[in-house]
Amino acid sequence: MPKIDFATVTSRQGSAYPAPHDAPCASRLRQKLGDAGGLTTFGVNLMHLPPGGWSSQRHWHSHEDEFVYVLAGEVVLIDDDGEHRLVAGDCAAFPAGQPNGHHLVNRGAETALFLEVGGRHADDRTIYADIDMMSGEGDAYVRKDGSAFNQA
Amino acid sequence: MPKIDFATVTSRQGSAYPAPHDAPCASRLRQKLGDAGGLTTFGVNLMHLPPGGWSSQRHWHSHEDEFVYVLAGEVVLIDDDGEHRLVAGDCAAFPAGQPNGHHLVNRGAETALFLEVGGRHADDRTIYADIDMMSGEGDAYVRKDGSAFNQA
Repeated sequence: MPKIDFATVTSRQGSAYPAPHDAPCASRLRQKLGDAGGLTTFGVNLMHLPPGGWSSQRHWHSHEDEFVYVLAGEVVLIDDDGEHRLVAGDCAAFPAGQPNGHHLVNRGAETALFLEVGGRHADDRTIYADIDMMSGEGDAYVRKDGSAFNQA
Repeated sequence: MPKIDFATVTSRQGSAYPAPHDAPCASRLRQKLGDAGGLTTFGVNLMHLPPGGWSSQRHWHSHEDEFVYVLAGEVVLIDDDGEHRLVAGDCAAFPAGQPNGHHLVNRGAETALFLEVGGRHADDRTIYADIDMMSGEGDAYVRKDGSAFNQA
């Protein structure tokens, strides 16, 4: 059944970032629409971002395109070029391999709602612009020298 | 600049289907958001579908996932299982290779607005469920026996 039944959609609140990097993203809530629909070559998430929340740590992807479309509320897109306001109907695209770290921050008074679309590529690495973190093999996060966060 | 400037977005009205298959889709208007943002591994279109319009001929993709999210108005999703109403906030997913021909038809009184996301795969073929047409090499449309539409 192609029409997505929201009762079957997996939600996840917060992030898997190691502390303390998880704190600014603790309130974000993602509904995995693409996964619910059986898609495998790209992902589509419906993100609910409460006031004060960050969509992610500021990052870029080595091999995966990314796209966001704002449905309600407003967010500030922060990237290497500064700050850009996005309201309902605004969108932004982040081509794979462009080292422009970006994230969305909700400085408004209401929960912002936006769609996130992201590619799927086995070789993708996510590089974080402001902190000593990147994605390693699988879903693990490591320091930029490859060491684990739980090492002394 | 990741934020999409709508002044730079290419619009295309109608389809490249050979006549008479183009007629039901003549009013559709697509804004190519992903292309405007430099994305290459998936496409994102903002579709404006006036009353009476069809999003496409009913079709499925051999290698490309597809996803739609309704922003405004309402449409009827028609697939092998029948008709399904989609209003703002509803979405649907069509995994690559599932031979369930689908399209969206606007039977409402106002222009419907929805996002379309589609994968990119060099081997993709689009197979049309109700008419003798498929996509061939490149962007050409051919009959299901591979013959060209302009042949006698």
